[in-house]
Amino acid sequence: MIAPLLAALPMLATAPPPLDDAPRPNLVVIFTDDLGYGDLSCYGNPTIATPHLDRMAAEGQRWTQFYVGASVCTPSRAALMTGRLPIRSGMCNTRHRVLFPDSTGGLPASETTLAEALRDLGYATGAVGKWHLGHRPEYLPTNHGFDSYYGIPYSNDMDRLPSAPSGRVAITEPQIEYFNVPLLRDTEIIERPTDQRTLTRRYTEQSVRFIRDHTEGDQPFFLYLAHSMPHVPLFRSQQFEDVSLRGLYGDVVEEIDWSVGQILDAIRGLGIAEQTLVVFTSDNGPWLTYDQQGGSAGLLRNGKGSTWEGGMREPFLAWWPGTVPAGQVVPDLGTTMDLLPTAVLLAGGEPPSDRILDGVDLRPALLDTGPSPRDSVFYYRGTELYAVRLGPYKAHFITQEPYGQNTNRIEHDPPLLFHLEHDPSERFDLSADHPEVLARIRRLADAHRATVEPVPNQLETRIPAD
Amino acid sequence: MIAPLLAALPMLATAPPPLDDAPRPNLVVIFTDDLGYGDLSCYGNPTIATPHLDRMAAEGQRWTQFYVGASVCTPSRAALMTGRLPIRSGMCNTRHRVLFPDSTGGLPASETTLAEALRDLGYATGAVGKWHLGHRPEYLPTNHGFDSYYGIPYSNDMDRLPSAPSGRVAITEPQIEYFNVPLLRDTEIIERPTDQRTLTRRYTEQSVRFIRDHTEGDQPFFLYLAHSMPHVPLFRSQQFEDVSLRGLYGDVVEEIDWSVGQILDAIRGLGIAEQTLVVFTSDNGPWLTYDQQGGSAGLLRNGKGSTWEGGMREPFLAWWPGTVPAGQVVPDLGTTMDLLPTAVLLAGGEPPSDRILDGVDLRPALLDTGPSPRDSVFYYRGTELYAVRLGPYKAHFITQEPYGQNTNRIEHDPPLLFHLEHDPSERFDLSADHPEVLARIRRLADAHRATVEPVPNQLETRIPAD
Repeated sequence: MIAPLLAALPMLATAPPPLDDAPRPNLVVIFTDDLGYGDLSCYGNPTIATPHLDRMAAEGQRWTQFYVGASVCTPSRAALMTGRLPIRSGMCNTRHRVLFPDSTGGLPASETTLAEALRDLGYATGAVGKWHLGHRPEYLPTNHGFDSYYGIPYSNDMDRLPSAPSGRVAITEPQIEYFNVPLLRDTEIIERPTDQRTLTRRYTEQSVRFIRDHTEGDQPFFLYLAHSMPHVPLFRSQQFEDVSLRGLYGDVVEEIDWSVGQILDAIRGLGIAEQTLVVFTSDNGPWLTYDQQGGSAGLLRNGKGSTWEGGMREPFLAWWPGTVPAGQVVPDLGTTMDLLPTAVLLAGGEPPSDRILDGVDLRPALLDTGPSPRDSVFYYRGTELYAVRLGPYKAHFITQEPYGQNTNRIEHDPPLLFHLEHDPSERFDLSADHPEVLARIRRLADAHRATVEPVPNQLETRIPAD
Repeated sequence: MIAPLLAALPMLATAPPPLDDAPRPNLVVIFTDDLGYGDLSCYGNPTIATPHLDRMAAEGQRWTQFYVGASVCTPSRAALMTGRLPIRSGMCNTRHRVLFPDSTGGLPASETTLAEALRDLGYATGAVGKWHLGHRPEYLPTNHGFDSYYGIPYSNDMDRLPSAPSGRVAITEPQIEYFNVPLLRDTEIIERPTDQRTLTRRYTEQSVRFIRDHTEGDQPFFLYLAHSMPHVPLFRSQQFEDVSLRGLYGDVVEEIDWSVGQILDAIRGLGIAEQTLVVFTSDNGPWLTYDQQGGSAGLLRNGKGSTWEGGMREPFLAWWPGTVPAGQVVPDLGTTMDLLPTAVLLAGGEPPSDRILDGVDLRPALLDTGPSPRDSVFYYRGTELYAVRLGPYKAHFITQEPYGQNTNRIEHDPPLLFHLEHDPSERFDLSADHPEVLARIRRLADAHRATVEPVPNQLETRIPAD
């Protein structure tokens, strides 16, 4: 009974005819933490200088309506890694929004990760940076398809020691020793607390080394570089102290920009640019409650933790000289969940067919042979569907301020309705004008909900405090 | 007694050593109406496609902290044309914020316009588009230094006929015949009402013709192209109906983008690109009260009519292949008032020395030989100084919602204080933290006020209604 519904849903990955002449590229995914839609120069930031990202955009595509799978860290990363909404893997939770050091769950082994899919197709796979999909050994990257791992297993503001100041000041005036976050190589702790000042630099060095080590021979590689920054507490290396007009937050973003330059320069220098697809995006919008230590969503409304556009729409750059057109601005819809099917198809494989994928094949838009097949986006908060986009229209069934439990929660009937392409800042409610659009979105939401099966929630279980 | 104060003020144009090897360029100033900081793709707009402006930015400079002289039309244009704050020419007024068809005043003959200054240096001068510095014959462009003029003398929403619908609907669902705006050639009316649908196209054709007609021979030219759009009522030619994802407002901006492409293509095609400086900006921020028919200030606060950043900070592109560096993002301070001294110096002349200029010489920043000498901005509403920027800090002495007389007007003591480079959206008041900065800004404001001499107000006098 469910099949006809599924067939009507755009989120199912369907295998299009293979693009036979496409090469089998290396893939580098650069993923930042809490970077806003308005935080890069090429997305209009006035005082954060990002020349390397601007150049990446000029040599590739800059997407303007690209989304993540959730507005906070753990579920967003689960979405990218599985090509599925986190509601399907149990990696989202309304009460505990992300995994904490005392969480016992993680990404289930039953999920097929992007790394597993590409490794099965012969890729060398490496993860560098923040993971946040479970820190018990069975959940770490090396048990989810990565040959190697170097990074911190969760957010850089966690593991706060009792000796640190209480409250917000530990975050806004941080010291390394306040946060007892471990640095892992594969599954071993090699440093604790992690010296966060050099984290961006060290992630970069590890990434460049991985690329160099995997350039010889015929084996393609997949590198997942997930920066810990610009998530608070903000740290940058000495070289980037006070370099940005934007202050500390700008310093941190400018060091990430430098890092992107290092990665692309390494790829160019090794002569593999035309065999390497590099994408850049972030996990969710800016953490606005951290004031000047949080970023900006530009002209989008609200930020991290919310289902307004500022929470879930992100910069997205795609770079593959000779294949992805240079200098293209792409307003098509895309999401991080689309990377899995797209990458697998580029690698000559087929996306997993034994489960529902929410990702679609972005090859037509990336290779400029046609539009993105995506025409919808689902905006979850925890395990609940708050909003749905269909074409240019977005209906908010529920809105809520990003933080606070069940405060400011408003159920809308009729839902709020915005035309995001005319009104990217979500200012003008059109619900009274377009009941037919609301009806279509309601049907889409119902059909979507019918595809969601109950699974164990991975974020619910935490070790009781002493 | 005033001289020492003046000497300390950054707004006085001082003649630096001439840049001897700089050529004597043609100058094209493209000026739009009510375009917001966030309305171009290269400034982060997600659904307005501006490939020609993006290319102009890629081939030249994109400034991110560039200001106009006022947040509404007439005073802003007076500032550009005279290199002086409108308070000095009497071209600003708190009650009547701009000139209306029944206004009897205009830009005084005693002012030296950019056109006069360049004509005195041997330039051919042409004005195309909206003027709005007085429509009585003595105030028209051909009496202010332009050899020729083609355009409408004031805003396209004026001269509303009694037969038009009353209220807002005439603007938001406009017909050509609602607005009895005249189209002039030099001082003669050649069409009335103006067919606004083809205005952007016809301005473009006239501009390209002017450029072609002035390419032969040794005489350089100055073209001032002041688009009437995207000021409401919004009109575009048939070719641009429903082309933009952004809807009607996007169509209108995309036609202006096309126009920029036509101008630059003509300049390239005529082989004069390396002798021609083209700049693009707008008169003030987006008219937010027109909802989806108004633009976006991006991450900046508020819009047209306000002294928040969204009212007075604008996109600014500078293009001069071979001289202005390509692909540079410039966070230096600049204003439209700086164009006069900068252009005169580029033309080998000296800026007027018999009056106070508020413009400074932007050649160091434009030619990449040093920083902009500007370090302050004065934000007037009518004849009153509401805010002052000094370096990265902006103090608001008074804030007020853009529209409405003396409503929502708040005097701040201490002034609100924002660090615009850390906090471009003006969210975090720092007045309690930096009394020394406030003291410096107060001294600067006092010194500035001491330079302002009383002059007849040109916007006060209107013909009494019958």
